[in-house]
Amino acid sequence: MLALTVLPGEANSARLQEMPEPDASEGALLVRARAVGVCGTDAEIVAGKYGWAPAGADRLIIGHESLGIVEDAPPGSPFAKGDLVVGIVRRPDPEPCLNCGVGEWDMCRNGLYTERGIKQRHGYGSERFRLEPEFAVKIDARLGLHGVLLEPTSVVAKAWEQIERIGGRSAWSPRTVLVTGAGPIGLLAALLGVQRNLDVHVFDRVADGPKPELTRALGATYHAGTLADIDFAPSIVIECTGASSVIVDVLNRTAAGGIVCLAGVSSGGYRISLDLGRLNRSMVLENDVVFGSVNANRRHYGSAAKALSNADPAWLARLITRRVPLARWQDALRRQDHDIKVVIDFEA
Amino acid sequence: MLALTVLPGEANSARLQEMPEPDASEGALLVRARAVGVCGTDAEIVAGKYGWAPAGADRLIIGHESLGIVEDAPPGSPFAKGDLVVGIVRRPDPEPCLNCGVGEWDMCRNGLYTERGIKQRHGYGSERFRLEPEFAVKIDARLGLHGVLLEPTSVVAKAWEQIERIGGRSAWSPRTVLVTGAGPIGLLAALLGVQRNLDVHVFDRVADGPKPELTRALGATYHAGTLADIDFAPSIVIECTGASSVIVDVLNRTAAGGIVCLAGVSSGGYRISLDLGRLNRSMVLENDVVFGSVNANRRHYGSAAKALSNADPAWLARLITRRVPLARWQDALRRQDHDIKVVIDFEA
Repeated sequence: MLALTVLPGEANSARLQEMPEPDASEGALLVRARAVGVCGTDAEIVAGKYGWAPAGADRLIIGHESLGIVEDAPPGSPFAKGDLVVGIVRRPDPEPCLNCGVGEWDMCRNGLYTERGIKQRHGYGSERFRLEPEFAVKIDARLGLHGVLLEPTSVVAKAWEQIERIGGRSAWSPRTVLVTGAGPIGLLAALLGVQRNLDVHVFDRVADGPKPELTRALGATYHAGTLADIDFAPSIVIECTGASSVIVDVLNRTAAGGIVCLAGVSSGGYRISLDLGRLNRSMVLENDVVFGSVNANRRHYGSAAKALSNADPAWLARLITRRVPLARWQDALRRQDHDIKVVIDFEA
Repeated sequence: MLALTVLPGEANSARLQEMPEPDASEGALLVRARAVGVCGTDAEIVAGKYGWAPAGADRLIIGHESLGIVEDAPPGSPFAKGDLVVGIVRRPDPEPCLNCGVGEWDMCRNGLYTERGIKQRHGYGSERFRLEPEFAVKIDARLGLHGVLLEPTSVVAKAWEQIERIGGRSAWSPRTVLVTGAGPIGLLAALLGVQRNLDVHVFDRVADGPKPELTRALGATYHAGTLADIDFAPSIVIECTGASSVIVDVLNRTAAGGIVCLAGVSSGGYRISLDLGRLNRSMVLENDVVFGSVNANRRHYGSAAKALSNADPAWLARLITRRVPLARWQDALRRQDHDIKVVIDFEA
């Protein structure tokens, strides 16, 4: 079968190549790929900056934002041939920590998890892949291709759950949310904020392209340019840019008791100048919280599936700005202006 | 009666002066001062950098770490003449926010609270003061003068409660705690950590004086000098120095899923250089949390009273390194080497 692979750690090593069919040991469900979404982590892997091959292998099959169609399911499993499924990314092994042991692999504390398409396990960027039924999530058939948005939506579902759990440490009635960065994660975070009846604001550098319209179509407010224009103190910030200057700006703008969820993975490597004493003082005197959030567990995939089912299908369709056939996979990995979510379409 | 007052905003305006007896409108309990603790906030107020007088007044009676003896209590109240009491600092007025309305004035979101001895209400640094019964906390008589430690202990009781509530957002079984800064707040935070059966480490700049011994007497480990010597990744950090360099150091040292509680109020005003992108990346990928904690509500005074009752009285006695008679109040406000908690003793 054809698969997209890289030599982890080596820039520009990505290629489409023949690989053996997935081994039965990888799971009882045999799935035919429908689509694979491309994200920033894939870009890092392709650039040779991240990613690990499975033990004993040189190359890693990439792709972690999956959508597939069940080809073969074991009798008695909750799956049947033809079901639309998404594979969970992280696996709690080889040595489960306290959290991995209770299904909270997204909160893994010993770093010994594996991840499909990222860390020591082949991904979903191949014509066929296998899934353990407990790591497969069935998707509403009406979602169709939009089901490929489940994995990024699970990441924001986890972020929202954690915001609400942390917020619940005291009486809490948030009203305003600021999302920084109108990429797929930011826009999906805004969608889940609107679904919670909050007053959602989205900030991004760009003033043109599809981002402003996609924001307004949710009933949210779009802000371009600088955060200095924003005349309210948000109760919640979901930071999706990973840009240091944006992070400093939002930390200094929250309401008292504000919660900032850091959801953008930055690269680091350069220093900025910051009045940390002033920031510390205001965090202390206002009981502010800043926390990082990554990945998602099965519970979050479940709430993400509900969120997508409740979303306007036309809006989801516009979030997927490019569908690239597998044969033209290189186009999918090359970033274009106004890309939001780019997917590799295995049926095109 | 004699009272310690300042002209807020004016450095070195503190004086001991005659003031009118407290007005009955300040509360039904009449209390005779036993002792008042001195802390960093008092130093800021005396330096003219913080503090607000009551409406219509020029001068503010300072002192918020109280201990007094009930002189007169209304019949039917839970207090009687001779009871040892501590006054709560913050009041949820004049316009209670959601949190103030439910007794969580420590989490006030609109900033419109008042504070005895700090913000728009006279403090407890006078021979007599009044308390509303609902803002008075009865103390175990056996605590005696150590009851003056209740207010700073309430601040760390709140910090610990918030750590545990935030930690409970996922499965959690913390083992190691790092407390930075071995002043009264740091050492009391360490006490409450030891009472939770955690492996507690205390870091401070100084290697001599009473801090190392007070730490070891708790069964905790003392580290002096630099954090570079510390060879473990703490699950919990309680940061009590407010020093930017220490804050950066601890943010980069936590275990995955680490929780850093900022409890030290810094002054700000100068910039440091920081690889914020790298810090953001590790916070995201490890689900780390940083939050600020200030003040305490009635629940925290209650758990603080229990913590003090369970502590070794000899240890508490050593925490109070100087007892200064009211007539020599200026000595109390002048910081000396190896001071931990200094109290003004109204009976000396």
